[in-house]
Amino acid sequence: MRSLEVKNRTSVDDIKGLRLITAIKTPYLPDGRFDLEAYDSLMHMQILNGAEGVIVGGTTGEGHLMSWDEHIMLIGHTVNCFGSSVKVIGNTGSNSTREAIHASEQGFAVGMHAALHINPYYGKTSMQGMVAHFESVLSMGPTIIYNVPSRTGQDIPPSVIHTVSQNPNMAGVKECMGNDRIKDYVDKGITIWSGNDDECHDSRWAYGATGVISVTSNLVPGLMHEMMFRGKSPSLNSKLMPLIKWLFREPNPIGLNTALAQLGVIRPVFRLPYVPLPLAKRLEFVHIVEELGRENFVGDKDVKVLDDHDFTLVGRY
Amino acid sequence: MRSLEVKNRTSVDDIKGLRLITAIKTPYLPDGRFDLEAYDSLMHMQILNGAEGVIVGGTTGEGHLMSWDEHIMLIGHTVNCFGSSVKVIGNTGSNSTREAIHASEQGFAVGMHAALHINPYYGKTSMQGMVAHFESVLSMGPTIIYNVPSRTGQDIPPSVIHTVSQNPNMAGVKECMGNDRIKDYVDKGITIWSGNDDECHDSRWAYGATGVISVTSNLVPGLMHEMMFRGKSPSLNSKLMPLIKWLFREPNPIGLNTALAQLGVIRPVFRLPYVPLPLAKRLEFVHIVEELGRENFVGDKDVKVLDDHDFTLVGRY
Amino acid sequence: MRSLEVKNRTSVDDIKGLRLITAIKTPYLPDGRFDLEAYDSLMHMQILNGAEGVIVGGTTGEGHLMSWDEHIMLIGHTVNCFGSSVKVIGNTGSNSTREAIHASEQGFAVGMHAALHINPYYGKTSMQGMVAHFESVLSMGPTIIYNVPSRTGQDIPPSVIHTVSQNPNMAGVKECMGNDRIKDYVDKGITIWSGNDDECHDSRWAYGATGVISVTSNLVPGLMHEMMFRGKSPSLNSKLMPLIKWLFREPNPIGLNTALAQLGVIRPVFRLPYVPLPLAKRLEFVHIVEELGRENFVGDKDVKVLDDHDFTLVGRY
Amino acid sequence: MRSLEVKNRTSVDDIKGLRLITAIKTPYLPDGRFDLEAYDSLMHMQILNGAEGVIVGGTTGEGHLMSWDEHIMLIGHTVNCFGSSVKVIGNTGSNSTREAIHASEQGFAVGMHAALHINPYYGKTSMQGMVAHFESVLSMGPTIIYNVPSRTGQDIPPSVIHTVSQNPNMAGVKECMGNDRIKDYVDKGITIWSGNDDECHDSRWAYGATGVISVTSNLVPGLMHEMMFRGKSPSLNSKLMPLIKWLFREPNPIGLNTALAQLGVIRPVFRLPYVPLPLAKRLEFVHIVEELGRENFVGDKDVKVLDDHDFTLVGRY
Repeated sequence: MRSLEVKNRTSVDDIKGLRLITAIKTPYLPDGRFDLEAYDSLMHMQILNGAEGVIVGGTTGEGHLMSWDEHIMLIGHTVNCFGSSVKVIGNTGSNSTREAIHASEQGFAVGMHAALHINPYYGKTSMQGMVAHFESVLSMGPTIIYNVPSRTGQDIPPSVIHTVSQNPNMAGVKECMGNDRIKDYVDKGITIWSGNDDECHDSRWAYGATGVISVTSNLVPGLMHEMMFRGKSPSLNSKLMPLIKWLFREPNPIGLNTALAQLGVIRPVFRLPYVPLPLAKRLEFVHIVEELGRENFVGDKDVKVLDDHDFTLVGRY
Repeated sequence: MRSLEVKNRTSVDDIKGLRLITAIKTPYLPDGRFDLEAYDSLMHMQILNGAEGVIVGGTTGEGHLMSWDEHIMLIGHTVNCFGSSVKVIGNTGSNSTREAIHASEQGFAVGMHAALHINPYYGKTSMQGMVAHFESVLSMGPTIIYNVPSRTGQDIPPSVIHTVSQNPNMAGVKECMGNDRIKDYVDKGITIWSGNDDECHDSRWAYGATGVISVTSNLVPGLMHEMMFRGKSPSLNSKLMPLIKWLFREPNPIGLNTALAQLGVIRPVFRLPYVPLPLAKRLEFVHIVEELGRENFVGDKDVKVLDDHDFTLVGRY
Repeated sequence: MRSLEVKNRTSVDDIKGLRLITAIKTPYLPDGRFDLEAYDSLMHMQILNGAEGVIVGGTTGEGHLMSWDEHIMLIGHTVNCFGSSVKVIGNTGSNSTREAIHASEQGFAVGMHAALHINPYYGKTSMQGMVAHFESVLSMGPTIIYNVPSRTGQDIPPSVIHTVSQNPNMAGVKECMGNDRIKDYVDKGITIWSGNDDECHDSRWAYGATGVISVTSNLVPGLMHEMMFRGKSPSLNSKLMPLIKWLFREPNPIGLNTALAQLGVIRPVFRLPYVPLPLAKRLEFVHIVEELGRENFVGDKDVKVLDDHDFTLVGRY
Repeated sequence: MRSLEVKNRTSVDDIKGLRLITAIKTPYLPDGRFDLEAYDSLMHMQILNGAEGVIVGGTTGEGHLMSWDEHIMLIGHTVNCFGSSVKVIGNTGSNSTREAIHASEQGFAVGMHAALHINPYYGKTSMQGMVAHFESVLSMGPTIIYNVPSRTGQDIPPSVIHTVSQNPNMAGVKECMGNDRIKDYVDKGITIWSGNDDECHDSRWAYGATGVISVTSNLVPGLMHEMMFRGKSPSLNSKLMPLIKWLFREPNPIGLNTALAQLGVIRPVFRLPYVPLPLAKRLEFVHIVEELGRENFVGDKDVKVLDDHDFTLVGRY
């Protein structure tokens, strides 16, 4: 599909300037299909509260639980409905180079502004293989590379980032390896987004990160916007910490899914292997919301505890 | 995906008013993938010459040779690039109700303005089954139903059309059964597009059809626009007849594919089971172009005969 | 997948000798997935009553309502469970050459003994295109070609059959164009199976057909075996005619699906666009069973009329 | 597909007794499709040299680089050709519960003897989610659970194994967490296969493991058979150690793929993101083969160094 490079109207610089990118949640109907009405509503809340970009089908959006056609459809839908208000970054990465190529071609063809690419998790590969993997997709359009060894089982070392950064489509790195790594990259002129909500304040204001790709902003987009735009604010950071800690006690997006259901902005439907947080944690969330103020959270219904039987878990969909 | 009905911003009436809809050709790269650069160029020519709508992945566009993810991607791409200039009608029909449902949901989700639906070809079904099939998809958005018994092996009788016409999303029928059938429908207030280029002048000006869903307009969009807009013009109709007859001597889109390659606007690449017209027919086409005037055809290169070895046929892609 | 030719242990001659091949029904669970338990039971009845081969996922088996992975799985399952007792012929044909190639490679890889190939229905093509289509798959293993213009919209003319018959993998033709066509082929040494149950007695005993690929044998395998093996028997043929006529009043497999549900050997579940025959026809079937004798039909439960609400129709599965 | 439980004729005890299971390599043609001829040849060598089981499409066999239809086809093919000589264990695990369910149903339907299941890598989940994931598939047939935190980013703790071990289909664990963990399981009566070739001698003879699921046995099946069957043999273990260390210097199966190509038993074709080991490592392998004796390795061609340009890397296939 030769036309892709010339078709994408988003410059790499447009991507490099984004400060608040939300790894948007994908909500479901009781049969496990996408609940696009709820999704569109979540997208509206993000845009109204200052998110400048979204990751569609990231690990938070459970891209790994989608078929590729669902995934590309969701990217196309997001571009079509919201692409003029927000940058749409499709998580078209895969541990299979073939899939990453195919999905990225399709994602750019339906108008996504940038791609998010992961190194080959689970299967892993050599450093040369990792470079070959990224180089297979970088020609297609603006690209963010995502490093999260706690999920992938393999760090993307700076040497690989430096090699692929020669490509003009390389927008930057979503980095989860901490602020020292971030500082090194920033010093070398590489754009960085923090991938850890609990570190992002310092990453941004003390280590030079451009912004954050956030999970927490699904819940409190306005506060996360404030944290990325208003300047150093340790008090705001501290205020958010209990929520952030609560969110990540189990692998993301378990906490987020549970919280959004409790806030009444999505149906309480989980695609397995995710299951809701237990009652005790849900009670904690109600208190966290009360502490931070319901008005800072998305939606306008009362936060609820929900009973175990309120949740639907789907394995076939 | 509950949001579909409310998301589509195209009213059924917008669809009902279209006079020239082109069943757009899908061009290929030598390895059989879509040549989006050539596609976009074909789309531009259509828009500049007055096409008001396109069918994406119709039989002309070889939707039956696409995987569904390719097909939906092409719909999303067309919406994203050209959706503000032209109505994008996705051929999300199938002889499998499941596939028709899935594709139509996805097509509307990525922004198509209307769906084209065929009755279950090859497998066929009873009249009740046919109604159930169409009713499975009509709730999703504006819909055109396509009747072409020479392909499907089964006529959609007026009784079925009348039943499904109760649905407010029913925009009309692309009818290939001739002008008497068309007249009956028009008399009952049903919007009709001719599906036969050789009859469309009369369908439009003598039998009340709204317009045409055309193959020939891929080649001479300006002349087809004239034929649908300028009023009765038997001379123009006669002038076009040799081209139309040439185009349909073999099953469509064999003639069209060959012609577009000869005009230099697509690469001479065919997905099997289609193969180019033989040399003698290609020579005829050169004469037809000379007769009608090169300037009336798309593209600006000299029309060529091409050698057999210029063509690439792909079976695996 | 280079090994296919050498791996298939079934000679073309083994296929050429088959007299009774059943186009086996695919039964469903209420959610639309395959009911393999019922399927295996139907297969047992076929084998016990003398069927020598089965078509898996033919039009009768609703291959056109399967995804390809389901289809190949069903072929592999049938080979694994019954491949030593019966020849397994996979309907790996398609109107897309790519799909026919891919499915046939996979079908032979999982052990099917022969492929059934259709000409490109709906999309259609030229005679050269038809030959190219068949030649794309003939190298893979024993192949039966299926001609059914009432479904495909295009006859496979004798010239095409003669061309492809040069290939040593060509086993023969399932022909629905009547006994004159059959006689011509037989005279030229081409193996023929009748594709019309109502003509098969004469095809076999008066026109030289080798046997039948039967729908009716799903219901009365023993009688169909008798008809193909016992020699001319106009009385048996006449006795079966009311059943055969009943079966094909609506497009197959609507009648068959309804009948098998009434016999209690499958659940009354239909994948759309198929819907059950109406009550009046179901009553007729009960009488037909009584006339022919319940003991000649598969299963051992009483034949039932069933209420409309006993049937489940599934569109998403 | 209800029939699965009753159809599988392999008892869990048959699986529990296997000592040498090879995680078989999947070889490719230059266009990236499976080279089934080479695969069948590799399978023969395994069977002749004493492998009792194979993992089809494991991480070694690059299941994560297959589409599911390819994967199930390869399982069906292996069952069909070799299922009477060797136990066929399909790696139908996934980090998506839906995919694990679908693939396991299909794998058992085409006759695999057991499934290998991984915990949800990359996406990860809570302990309850992990249990729910495994319980979604355990009812289908004999199952081995695979724990490899260095790939998955998440340990399967003993508590999860103990919970799922209540299921009668649970055959045992392929464990990579070391011999202390193995000993604990063995003491509790849980069947264990070592997942680390460098530890497997001790796992088997000092810590009670039943056997090994081996990568190295692709190269030296006879020696690995000896190590699992002949009793304690530290000298054999030491002799193999240089080969094993060489094999795992880069993420598996990079070393294995390179070695098999050098031995001339597969074409030097890599699916990205895997790339061959560099020249220096290939020279080392030639020396290792000479040390251990060419006759202990699969194939009978001279071992070669190969040039860089001998290798084909495929990204689209």
